[in-house]
Amino acid sequence: MPSDLSFLARLRHLQQQKQSCLCVGLDPDLPRLPFHLRETYPPEEALVVFCRAIIAATAPLACAFKVNLAFFEVLGSPGWRALEAVFAAIPPDTVSIADAKRGDIGNTARCYAHSLFDHLGADAATVAPYMGRDSVEPFLQYPGKGTFVLARTSNPGANDFQEQKVDGVPLYLHVARQVARWGADTPGSAGLVVGATEAAPLLALRAACPTLPFLIPGVGAQGGTVADVLQAATPDGPVLVNSSRQLLYASAGTDFAEAATHEAAALRQRLA
Amino acid sequence: MPSDLSFLARLRHLQQQKQSCLCVGLDPDLPRLPFHLRETYPPEEALVVFCRAIIAATAPLACAFKVNLAFFEVLGSPGWRALEAVFAAIPPDTVSIADAKRGDIGNTARCYAHSLFDHLGADAATVAPYMGRDSVEPFLQYPGKGTFVLARTSNPGANDFQEQKVDGVPLYLHVARQVARWGADTPGSAGLVVGATEAAPLLALRAACPTLPFLIPGVGAQGGTVADVLQAATPDGPVLVNSSRQLLYASAGTDFAEAATHEAAALRQRLA
Repeated sequence: MPSDLSFLARLRHLQQQKQSCLCVGLDPDLPRLPFHLRETYPPEEALVVFCRAIIAATAPLACAFKVNLAFFEVLGSPGWRALEAVFAAIPPDTVSIADAKRGDIGNTARCYAHSLFDHLGADAATVAPYMGRDSVEPFLQYPGKGTFVLARTSNPGANDFQEQKVDGVPLYLHVARQVARWGADTPGSAGLVVGATEAAPLLALRAACPTLPFLIPGVGAQGGTVADVLQAATPDGPVLVNSSRQLLYASAGTDFAEAATHEAAALRQRLA
Repeated sequence: MPSDLSFLARLRHLQQQKQSCLCVGLDPDLPRLPFHLRETYPPEEALVVFCRAIIAATAPLACAFKVNLAFFEVLGSPGWRALEAVFAAIPPDTVSIADAKRGDIGNTARCYAHSLFDHLGADAATVAPYMGRDSVEPFLQYPGKGTFVLARTSNPGANDFQEQKVDGVPLYLHVARQVARWGADTPGSAGLVVGATEAAPLLALRAACPTLPFLIPGVGAQGGTVADVLQAATPDGPVLVNSSRQLLYASAGTDFAEAATHEAAALRQRLA
Protein backbone atom coordinates (compact mmCIF):
# COMPACT_ATOMS: atom_id res chain seq x y z
CA MET A 1 0.00 0.00 0.00
CA PRO A 2 1.49 3.45 -0.85
CA SER A 3 2.57 5.29 2.28
CA ASP A 4 1.12 8.63 1.13
CA LEU A 5 -2.44 7.44 1.71
CA SER A 6 -4.50 9.36 4.24
CA PHE A 7 -5.37 7.57 7.46
CA LEU A 8 -8.98 7.27 6.34
CA ALA A 9 -8.03 5.76 2.98
CA ARG A 10 -5.79 3.24 4.69
CA LEU A 11 -8.47 2.35 7.24
CA ARG A 12 -11.06 1.82 4.47
CA HIS A 13 -8.63 -0.35 2.53
CA LEU A 14 -7.88 -2.53 5.57
CA GLN A 15 -11.51 -2.85 6.54
CA GLN A 16 -12.38 -4.02 3.05
CA GLN A 17 -9.39 -6.34 2.83
CA LYS A 18 -10.08 -7.97 6.20
CA GLN A 19 -13.86 -7.65 6.11
CA SER A 20 -13.80 -6.38 9.67
CA CYS A 21 -14.55 -3.19 11.59
CA LEU A 22 -13.40 -4.74 14.86
CA CYS A 23 -10.90 -2.80 16.95
CA VAL A 24 -9.30 -4.76 19.78
CA GLY A 25 -8.79 -2.57 22.84
CA LEU A 26 -5.60 -3.33 24.72
CA ASP A 27 -6.41 -2.11 28.26
CA PRO A 28 -4.34 -4.66 30.18
CA ASP A 29 -5.40 -4.14 33.78
CA LEU A 30 -2.71 -5.95 35.78
CA PRO A 31 -4.91 -7.41 38.54
CA ARG A 32 -7.18 -8.93 35.88
CA LEU A 33 -4.42 -10.64 33.91
CA PRO A 34 -4.35 -14.46 34.04
CA PHE A 35 -2.77 -15.64 37.26
CA HIS A 36 -0.14 -17.77 35.55
CA LEU A 37 1.25 -14.68 33.80
CA ARG A 38 1.30 -12.57 36.95
CA GLU A 39 3.04 -15.39 38.77
CA THR A 40 5.66 -15.98 36.08
CA TYR A 41 6.68 -12.49 34.98
CA PRO A 42 7.46 -9.12 36.52
CA PRO A 43 4.52 -6.75 35.93
CA GLU A 44 5.89 -4.94 32.88
CA GLU A 45 6.78 -8.22 31.18
CA ALA A 46 3.40 -9.69 32.01
CA LEU A 47 1.78 -6.76 30.14
CA VAL A 48 3.88 -7.46 27.05
CA VAL A 49 3.41 -11.23 27.07
CA PHE A 50 -0.33 -10.81 27.56
CA CYS A 51 -0.77 -8.14 24.86
CA ARG A 52 1.42 -9.98 22.33
CA ALA A 53 -0.67 -13.11 22.81
CA ILE A 54 -3.92 -11.17 22.41
CA ILE A 55 -2.57 -9.43 19.29
CA ALA A 56 -1.50 -12.72 17.71
CA ALA A 57 -4.84 -14.32 18.62
CA THR A 58 -7.03 -11.55 17.20
CA ALA A 59 -5.05 -9.82 14.42
CA PRO A 60 -6.56 -11.89 11.59
CA LEU A 61 -10.03 -10.84 12.78
CA ALA A 62 -9.41 -7.16 13.55
CA CYS A 63 -8.69 -4.06 11.48
CA ALA A 64 -7.28 -2.10 14.42
CA PHE A 65 -5.73 -2.24 17.86
CA LYS A 66 -6.33 0.54 20.38
CA VAL A 67 -3.73 0.71 23.14
CA ASN A 68 -4.75 2.52 26.34
CA LEU A 69 -1.67 4.27 27.73
CA ALA A 70 -2.92 4.49 31.33
CA PHE A 71 -2.52 0.76 31.92
CA PHE A 72 1.17 1.06 31.04
CA GLU A 73 1.91 4.42 32.67
CA VAL A 74 0.71 2.99 35.96
CA LEU A 75 4.14 1.27 36.05
CA GLY A 76 6.13 4.36 35.07
CA SER A 77 9.15 4.02 32.78
CA PRO A 78 9.11 0.20 32.77
CA GLY A 79 5.48 0.50 31.69
CA TRP A 80 6.51 2.79 28.85
CA ARG A 81 9.07 0.23 27.74
CA ALA A 82 6.26 -2.33 27.68
CA LEU A 83 4.15 0.13 25.68
CA GLU A 84 6.90 0.44 23.08
CA ALA A 85 7.13 -3.35 22.84
CA VAL A 86 3.37 -3.68 22.40
CA PHE A 87 3.23 -1.08 19.60
CA ALA A 88 6.11 -2.89 17.88
CA ALA A 89 4.05 -6.10 17.95
CA ILE A 90 1.02 -4.66 16.13
CA PRO A 91 1.08 -6.04 12.57
CA PRO A 92 1.14 -3.69 9.56
CA ASP A 93 -2.20 -4.96 8.21
CA THR A 94 -4.01 -3.33 11.13
CA VAL A 95 -4.03 0.29 12.29
CA SER A 96 -2.62 1.07 15.71
CA ILE A 97 -4.36 3.69 17.86
CA ALA A 98 -2.72 5.32 20.86
CA ASP A 99 -5.62 5.91 23.24
CA ALA A 100 -3.99 8.72 25.17
CA LYS A 101 -6.65 11.48 25.20
CA ARG A 102 -3.96 14.15 25.33
CA GLY A 103 -4.81 17.82 25.01
CA ASP A 104 -2.60 20.83 25.66
CA ILE A 105 -1.48 24.15 24.14
CA GLY A 106 0.18 24.12 20.72
CA ASN A 107 3.87 23.62 21.53
CA THR A 108 3.02 20.95 24.12
CA ALA A 109 0.54 19.20 21.82
CA ARG A 110 3.32 18.98 19.23
CA CYS A 111 5.44 17.03 21.74
CA TYR A 112 2.56 14.65 22.49
CA ALA A 113 1.92 14.12 18.77
CA HIS A 114 5.60 13.42 18.20
CA SER A 115 5.62 10.99 21.13
CA LEU A 116 2.60 9.02 19.89
CA PHE A 117 3.07 9.17 16.11
CA ASP A 118 6.86 9.17 15.71
CA HIS A 119 8.20 7.56 18.85
CA LEU A 120 5.54 4.88 19.41
CA GLY A 121 4.73 4.76 15.70
CA ALA A 122 0.97 4.85 16.27
CA ASP A 123 -1.18 5.28 13.14
CA ALA A 124 -3.76 7.29 15.07
CA ALA A 125 -4.36 8.83 18.48
CA THR A 126 -7.27 9.94 20.64
CA VAL A 127 -7.28 13.63 21.62
CA ALA A 128 -9.34 15.67 24.11
CA PRO A 129 -11.07 18.76 22.70
CA TYR A 130 -11.48 21.05 25.74
CA MET A 131 -8.51 23.32 24.93
CA GLY A 132 -9.66 23.95 21.36
CA ARG A 133 -8.18 24.19 17.92
CA ASP A 134 -4.49 24.78 18.65
CA SER A 135 -4.49 21.72 20.94
CA VAL A 136 -5.87 19.46 18.18
CA GLU A 137 -4.19 20.79 15.02
CA PRO A 138 -0.67 19.50 15.75
CA PHE A 139 -2.20 16.01 15.57
CA LEU A 140 -4.34 16.69 12.48
CA GLN A 141 -1.35 18.04 10.58
CA TYR A 142 0.61 14.79 10.75
CA PRO A 143 0.62 13.33 7.23
CA GLY A 144 -1.02 9.93 7.04
CA LYS A 145 -2.01 9.83 10.71
CA GLY A 146 -5.49 9.77 12.24
CA THR A 147 -6.82 11.93 15.07
CA PHE A 148 -9.92 10.77 16.93
CA VAL A 149 -11.25 13.67 18.99
CA LEU A 150 -13.52 12.90 21.94
CA ALA A 151 -17.09 13.88 21.05
CA ARG A 152 -19.64 11.80 23.02
CA THR A 153 -18.00 9.31 25.35
CA SER A 154 -19.50 6.16 26.82
CA ASN A 155 -19.06 6.85 30.56
CA PRO A 156 -21.65 8.18 33.04
CA GLY A 157 -19.82 11.53 33.27
CA ALA A 158 -20.48 12.14 29.57
CA ASN A 159 -23.72 13.77 30.70
CA ASP A 160 -21.95 16.40 32.81
CA PHE A 161 -20.62 18.61 30.02
CA GLN A 162 -20.97 16.86 26.66
CA GLU A 163 -24.76 16.90 26.85
CA GLN A 164 -24.97 20.57 27.86
CA LYS A 165 -26.66 22.70 25.23
CA VAL A 166 -24.61 25.30 23.35
CA ASP A 167 -26.70 27.39 20.93
CA GLY A 168 -29.41 24.79 21.24
CA VAL A 169 -27.27 21.76 20.38
CA PRO A 170 -25.37 19.48 22.74
CA LEU A 171 -21.71 20.37 23.25
CA TYR A 172 -20.63 17.04 21.75
CA LEU A 173 -22.28 17.96 18.45
CA HIS A 174 -20.71 21.41 18.53
CA VAL A 175 -17.30 19.79 19.12
CA ALA A 176 -17.86 17.33 16.26
CA ARG A 177 -18.78 20.08 13.79
CA GLN A 178 -15.68 22.06 14.72
CA VAL A 179 -13.46 19.00 14.33
CA ALA A 180 -14.92 18.41 10.87
CA ARG A 181 -14.06 22.03 9.97
CA TRP A 182 -10.54 21.85 11.39
CA GLY A 183 -9.93 18.61 9.54
CA ALA A 184 -11.02 20.03 6.18
CA ASP A 185 -7.47 21.17 5.36
CA THR A 186 -6.05 17.70 5.93
CA PRO A 187 -8.59 15.31 4.41
CA GLY A 188 -8.74 11.84 5.90
CA SER A 189 -7.05 12.78 9.17
CA ALA A 190 -9.93 13.70 11.51
CA GLY A 191 -12.21 11.27 13.31
CA LEU A 192 -14.40 11.18 16.40
CA VAL A 193 -14.68 9.06 19.52
CA VAL A 194 -18.35 8.23 19.94
CA GLY A 195 -19.56 5.97 22.71
CA ALA A 196 -22.01 3.22 21.87
CA THR A 197 -24.04 3.38 25.05
CA GLU A 198 -26.85 5.39 23.44
CA ALA A 199 -28.09 5.34 19.86
CA ALA A 200 -29.31 8.95 19.58
CA PRO A 201 -25.91 10.69 19.87
CA LEU A 202 -24.42 8.20 17.40
CA LEU A 203 -27.02 8.99 14.78
CA ALA A 204 -26.91 12.75 15.40
CA LEU A 205 -23.14 12.71 14.98
CA ARG A 206 -23.29 10.63 11.79
CA ALA A 207 -25.82 13.05 10.32
CA ALA A 208 -23.57 15.99 11.19
CA CYS A 209 -20.31 14.37 10.08
CA PRO A 210 -21.07 11.96 7.23
CA THR A 211 -17.47 11.30 6.23
CA LEU A 212 -15.57 11.12 9.53
CA PRO A 213 -14.50 7.73 10.86
CA PHE A 214 -15.95 6.96 14.28
CA LEU A 215 -14.03 5.10 16.95
CA ILE A 216 -16.77 3.49 19.02
CA PRO A 217 -16.04 2.15 22.48
CA GLY A 218 -18.68 0.90 24.86
CA VAL A 219 -19.93 -2.17 23.04
CA GLY A 220 -20.18 -5.07 25.46
CA ALA A 221 -19.05 -4.36 29.03
CA GLN A 222 -20.27 -0.75 28.87
CA GLY A 223 -23.69 -1.67 27.53
CA GLY A 224 -23.87 -0.59 23.87
CA THR A 225 -25.52 -2.83 21.30
CA VAL A 226 -24.21 -3.91 17.93
CA ALA A 227 -27.44 -2.83 16.24
CA ASP A 228 -27.03 0.76 17.49
CA VAL A 229 -23.47 0.87 16.26
CA LEU A 230 -24.16 -0.50 12.81
CA GLN A 231 -26.65 2.27 12.15
CA ALA A 232 -23.76 4.72 12.30
CA ALA A 233 -21.66 2.86 9.71
CA THR A 234 -22.14 4.19 6.18
CA PRO A 235 -20.22 3.65 2.95
CA ASP A 236 -18.54 7.07 3.38
CA GLY A 237 -18.27 7.07 7.16
CA PRO A 238 -16.62 3.93 8.49
CA VAL A 239 -16.76 2.87 12.12
CA LEU A 240 -14.21 1.13 14.30
CA VAL A 241 -16.01 -0.89 16.93
CA ASN A 242 -13.80 -1.29 19.95
CA SER A 243 -14.06 -4.17 22.35
CA SER A 244 -11.68 -4.48 25.27
CA ARG A 245 -12.70 -6.25 28.46
CA GLN A 246 -15.03 -8.70 26.72
CA LEU A 247 -12.11 -10.05 24.66
CA LEU A 248 -9.18 -9.57 27.04
CA TYR A 249 -10.78 -11.31 29.99
CA ALA A 250 -12.86 -13.91 28.18
CA SER A 251 -10.89 -16.49 30.14
CA ALA A 252 -8.70 -16.03 33.22
CA GLY A 253 -6.86 -19.26 32.52
CA THR A 254 -4.03 -20.40 30.26
CA ASP A 255 -6.50 -20.48 27.37
CA PHE A 256 -7.04 -16.69 27.50
CA ALA A 257 -5.76 -16.16 23.95
CA GLU A 258 -7.96 -18.86 22.43
CA ALA A 259 -10.92 -17.42 24.33
CA ALA A 260 -10.12 -13.98 22.90
CA THR A 261 -10.01 -15.42 19.37
CA HIS A 262 -13.41 -16.98 19.95
CA GLU A 263 -14.94 -13.75 21.27
CA ALA A 264 -13.37 -11.67 18.50
CA ALA A 265 -14.66 -14.01 15.82
CA ALA A 266 -18.17 -13.90 17.28
CA LEU A 267 -18.17 -10.10 17.52
CA ARG A 268 -16.76 -9.69 14.00
CA GLN A 269 -19.54 -11.91 12.70
CA ARG A 270 -22.22 -9.91 14.51
CA LEU A 271 -20.74 -6.72 13.03
CA ALA A 272 -20.61 -8.10 9.48
CA MET B 1 4.33 19.03 58.80
CA PRO B 2 1.77 16.28 59.53
CA SER B 3 1.14 14.15 56.46
CA ASP B 4 -2.64 14.08 56.93
CA LEU B 5 -2.98 17.70 55.85
CA SER B 6 -5.09 18.38 52.79
CA PHE B 7 -3.27 19.57 49.68
CA LEU B 8 -4.74 23.03 50.15
CA ALA B 9 -3.61 23.25 53.78
CA ARG B 10 -0.11 22.17 52.81
CA LEU B 11 0.01 24.67 49.94
CA ARG B 12 -1.11 27.51 52.21
CA HIS B 13 1.50 26.56 54.81
CA LEU B 14 4.29 26.50 52.23
CA GLN B 15 3.24 29.77 50.65
CA GLN B 16 3.28 31.45 54.03
CA GLN B 17 6.55 29.86 55.04
CA LYS B 18 8.33 30.82 51.82
CA GLN B 19 6.42 34.03 51.18
CA SER B 20 5.97 33.01 47.59
CA CYS B 21 3.17 32.03 45.22
CA LEU B 22 5.63 31.34 42.40
CA CYS B 23 5.34 28.02 40.58
CA VAL B 24 8.28 27.15 38.34
CA GLY B 25 7.10 25.40 35.19
CA LEU B 26 9.46 22.67 34.01
CA ASP B 27 8.68 22.44 30.28
CA PRO B 28 12.16 21.51 29.07
CA ASP B 29 11.92 21.84 25.28
CA LEU B 30 15.02 20.02 24.02
CA PRO B 31 15.89 22.30 21.09
CA ARG B 32 15.79 25.29 23.46
CA LEU B 33 18.13 23.83 26.08
CA PRO B 34 21.58 25.45 26.41
CA PHE B 35 23.87 24.21 23.68
CA HIS B 36 26.56 23.02 26.08
CA LEU B 37 24.07 20.60 27.68
CA ARG B 38 22.79 19.26 24.37
CA GLU B 39 26.37 18.78 23.23
CA THR B 40 27.51 17.01 26.39
CA TYR B 41 24.65 14.67 27.25
CA PRO B 42 22.26 12.31 25.50
CA PRO B 43 18.79 13.94 25.28
CA GLU B 44 17.22 12.25 28.32
CA GLU B 45 20.20 13.13 30.52
CA ALA B 46 20.22 16.70 29.24
CA LEU B 47 16.61 17.03 30.45
CA VAL B 48 17.55 15.81 33.92
CA VAL B 49 20.71 17.93 34.26
CA PHE B 50 18.85 21.00 33.05
CA CYS B 51 15.80 20.51 35.30
CA ARG B 52 17.88 19.67 38.37
CA ALA B 53 19.89 22.86 37.88
CA ILE B 54 16.71 24.93 37.47
CA ILE B 55 15.18 23.31 40.56
CA ALA B 56 18.25 24.01 42.68
CA ALA B 57 18.44 27.58 41.37
CA THR B 58 14.79 28.45 42.04
CA ALA B 59 13.58 26.23 44.92
CA PRO B 60 14.27 28.83 47.64
CA LEU B 61 12.09 31.30 45.73
CA ALA B 62 9.23 29.01 44.68
CA CYS B 63 6.39 27.23 46.47
CA ALA B 64 5.79 24.78 43.63
CA PHE B 65 7.19 23.07 40.56
CA LYS B 66 4.93 22.08 37.68
CA VAL B 67 6.37 19.39 35.44
CA ASN B 68 4.92 19.12 31.92
CA LEU B 69 4.92 15.46 30.93
CA ALA B 70 4.85 16.06 27.16
CA PHE B 71 8.44 17.29 27.07
CA PHE B 72 9.56 13.98 28.57
CA GLU B 73 7.18 11.64 26.72
CA VAL B 74 8.55 12.98 23.46
CA LEU B 75 11.54 10.69 24.19
CA GLY B 76 9.46 7.65 25.15
CA SER B 77 10.60 5.39 27.98
CA PRO B 78 14.00 7.13 28.41
CA GLY B 79 11.99 10.35 28.78
CA TRP B 80 9.87 8.72 31.47
CA ARG B 81 13.04 7.71 33.32
CA ALA B 82 14.11 11.36 33.15
CA LEU B 83 10.66 12.37 34.44
CA GLU B 84 11.08 10.08 37.45
CA ALA B 85 14.50 11.58 38.17
CA VAL B 86 13.12 15.12 37.96
CA PHE B 87 10.25 14.40 40.36
CA ALA B 88 12.76 12.85 42.77
CA ALA B 89 14.75 16.10 42.69
CA ILE B 90 11.87 18.35 43.76
CA PRO B 91 12.48 19.31 47.41
CA PRO B 92 9.85 18.57 50.08
CA ASP B 93 9.36 22.25 50.95
CA THR B 94 7.66 22.79 47.58
CA VAL B 95 4.65 21.07 46.03
CA SER B 96 5.16 19.08 42.86
CA ILE B 97 2.51 19.22 40.15
CA ALA B 98 2.28 16.69 37.32
CA ASP B 99 0.98 18.74 34.41
CA ALA B 100 -0.49 15.81 32.51
CA LYS B 101 -4.04 16.96 31.67
CA ARG B 102 -5.26 13.37 31.72
CA GLY B 103 -8.94 12.52 31.49
CA ASP B 104 -10.57 9.14 30.90
CA ILE B 105 -13.32 6.84 32.20
CA GLY B 106 -13.21 5.76 35.85
CA ASN B 107 -11.06 2.62 35.79
CA THR B 108 -8.59 4.27 33.41
CA ALA B 109 -8.50 7.51 35.40
CA ARG B 110 -7.59 5.44 38.47
CA CYS B 111 -4.51 4.14 36.62
CA TYR B 112 -3.49 7.67 35.63
CA ALA B 113 -3.96 8.91 39.20
CA HIS B 114 -1.88 6.01 40.50
CA SER B 115 0.82 6.74 37.92
CA LEU B 116 1.07 10.43 38.82
CA PHE B 117 0.45 10.37 42.57
CA ASP B 118 1.97 7.05 43.65
CA HIS B 119 4.54 6.23 41.02
CA LEU B 120 5.89 9.72 40.30
CA GLY B 121 4.99 10.92 43.78
CA ALA B 122 3.42 14.15 42.55
CA ASP B 123 1.57 16.22 45.15
CA ALA B 124 -0.95 17.40 42.56
CA ALA B 125 -1.96 16.86 38.95
CA THR B 126 -3.78 18.69 36.19
CA VAL B 127 -6.88 16.96 34.81
CA ALA B 128 -9.11 17.60 31.77
CA PRO B 129 -12.85 17.91 32.49
CA TYR B 130 -14.51 16.92 29.19
CA MET B 131 -15.42 13.37 30.26
CA GLY B 132 -17.11 14.53 33.46
CA ARG B 133 -17.33 13.47 37.06
CA ASP B 134 -16.15 9.85 36.95
CA SER B 135 -13.03 10.95 35.07
CA VAL B 136 -12.10 13.50 37.76
CA GLU B 137 -13.14 11.77 41.00
CA PRO B 138 -10.38 9.13 41.09
CA PHE B 139 -7.97 12.07 41.37
CA LEU B 140 -10.03 14.02 43.93
CA GLN B 141 -10.32 10.97 46.16
CA TYR B 142 -6.56 10.65 46.73
CA PRO B 143 -5.91 11.71 50.34
CA GLY B 144 -3.61 14.70 50.62
CA LYS B 145 -3.28 15.20 46.85
CA GLY B 146 -4.40 18.15 44.74
CA THR B 147 -6.36 18.05 41.48
CA PHE B 148 -6.31 21.11 39.25
CA VAL B 149 -9.07 20.76 36.66
CA LEU B 150 -8.82 22.79 33.44
CA ALA B 151 -11.34 25.62 33.57
CA ARG B 152 -10.22 28.58 31.41
CA THR B 153 -6.88 27.97 29.71
CA SER B 154 -4.44 30.54 28.34
CA ASN B 155 -4.20 29.43 24.72
CA PRO B 156 -6.02 30.85 21.67
CA GLY B 157 -8.19 27.70 21.40
CA ALA B 158 -9.69 28.45 24.82
CA ASN B 159 -12.30 30.46 22.93
CA ASP B 160 -13.51 27.49 20.90
CA PHE B 161 -15.41 25.64 23.62
CA GLN B 162 -14.61 27.11 27.04
CA GLU B 163 -16.22 30.45 26.18
CA GLN B 164 -19.38 28.88 24.72
CA LYS B 165 -22.48 29.73 26.74
CA VAL B 166 -24.25 26.98 28.66
CA ASP B 167 -27.43 28.16 30.40
CA GLY B 168 -26.22 31.69 29.91
CA VAL B 169 -22.76 31.24 31.48
CA PRO B 170 -19.50 30.29 29.77
CA LEU B 171 -18.68 26.60 29.83
CA TYR B 172 -15.52 27.28 31.87
CA LEU B 173 -17.63 28.71 34.69
CA HIS B 174 -20.03 25.78 34.51
CA VAL B 175 -17.04 23.40 34.74
CA ALA B 176 -15.62 25.32 37.71
CA ARG B 177 -18.89 25.19 39.64
CA GLN B 178 -19.17 21.45 39.07
CA VAL B 179 -15.60 20.88 40.19
CA ALA B 180 -16.31 22.84 43.38
CA ARG B 181 -19.32 20.58 44.01
CA TRP B 182 -17.43 17.37 43.26
CA GLY B 183 -14.62 18.48 45.58
CA ALA B 184 -16.96 19.18 48.49
CA ASP B 185 -16.62 15.61 49.79
CA THR B 186 -12.82 15.83 49.89
CA PRO B 187 -12.06 19.34 51.19
CA GLY B 188 -8.77 20.84 50.10
CA SER B 189 -8.30 18.54 47.11
CA ALA B 190 -9.90 20.42 44.20
CA GLY B 191 -8.37 23.32 42.31
CA LEU B 192 -8.66 24.96 38.90
CA VAL B 193 -6.32 25.80 36.03
CA VAL B 194 -7.07 29.38 35.06
CA GLY B 195 -5.06 31.15 32.38
CA ALA B 196 -3.80 34.65 33.07
CA THR B 197 -4.23 36.02 29.58
CA GLU B 198 -7.47 37.83 30.41
CA ALA B 199 -8.62 39.36 33.69
CA ALA B 200 -12.38 38.86 33.33
CA PRO B 201 -12.46 35.04 33.47
CA LEU B 202 -10.05 35.08 36.43
CA LEU B 203 -12.34 37.34 38.43
CA ALA B 204 -15.52 35.51 37.43
CA LEU B 205 -13.97 32.22 38.52
CA ARG B 206 -12.76 33.64 41.83
CA ALA B 207 -16.23 34.98 42.55
CA ALA B 208 -17.75 31.57 41.77
CA CYS B 209 -15.14 29.53 43.63
CA PRO B 210 -13.83 31.60 46.55
CA THR B 211 -11.89 28.79 48.25
CA LEU B 212 -10.35 26.81 45.39
CA PRO B 213 -6.65 27.21 44.69
CA PHE B 214 -5.95 28.46 41.15
CA LEU B 215 -3.00 27.28 39.12
CA ILE B 216 -2.36 30.19 36.79
CA PRO B 217 -0.23 29.75 33.68
CA GLY B 218 0.21 32.38 31.01
CA VAL B 219 2.07 35.08 32.92
CA GLY B 220 4.99 36.32 30.84
CA ALA B 221 5.48 34.60 27.48
CA GLN B 222 1.74 34.12 26.99
CA GLY B 223 0.87 37.73 27.79
CA GLY B 224 -0.83 37.80 31.20
CA THR B 225 -0.01 40.55 33.68
CA VAL B 226 0.88 40.24 37.34
CA ALA B 227 -1.74 42.84 38.27
CA ASP B 228 -4.54 40.73 36.73
CA VAL B 229 -3.36 37.65 38.55
CA LEU B 230 -3.05 39.25 41.96
CA GLN B 231 -6.69 40.31 41.84
CA ALA B 232 -7.61 36.62 41.93
CA ALA B 233 -5.55 35.89 45.05
CA THR B 234 -7.58 36.11 48.26
CA PRO B 235 -6.87 35.02 51.83
CA ASP B 236 -9.13 31.97 51.33
CA GLY B 237 -8.33 31.30 47.69
CA PRO B 238 -4.60 31.05 47.04
CA VAL B 239 -3.05 31.25 43.60
CA LEU B 240 -0.03 29.51 42.14
CA VAL B 241 1.48 31.70 39.46
CA ASN B 242 3.33 29.57 36.96
CA SER B 243 6.20 30.83 34.88
CA SER B 244 8.02 28.52 32.51
CA ARG B 245 9.75 29.86 29.40
CA GLN B 246 10.63 33.21 30.96
CA LEU B 247 12.67 31.45 33.65
CA LEU B 248 13.92 28.37 31.81
CA TYR B 249 15.32 30.22 28.83
CA ALA B 250 16.42 33.44 30.52
CA SER B 251 19.90 32.62 29.24
CA ALA B 252 20.96 30.12 26.58
CA GLY B 253 24.51 30.01 27.97
CA THR B 254 26.30 28.26 30.80
CA ASP B 255 24.79 30.82 33.21
CA PHE B 256 21.22 29.59 32.56
CA ALA B 257 20.65 28.62 36.20
CA GLU B 258 21.84 31.95 37.58
CA ALA B 259 19.67 33.73 35.03
CA ALA B 260 16.68 31.63 36.18
CA THR B 261 17.36 32.59 39.80
CA HIS B 262 17.43 36.24 38.80
CA GLU B 263 14.14 36.01 36.88
CA ALA B 264 12.46 33.98 39.63
CA ALA B 265 13.51 36.50 42.27
CA ALA B 266 12.20 39.39 40.19
CA LEU B 267 8.87 37.68 39.54
CA ARG B 268 8.44 36.63 43.17
CA GLN B 269 9.02 40.24 44.20
CA ARG B 270 6.43 41.50 41.72
CA LEU B 271 3.96 38.94 43.08
CA ALA B 272 4.61 39.86 46.73
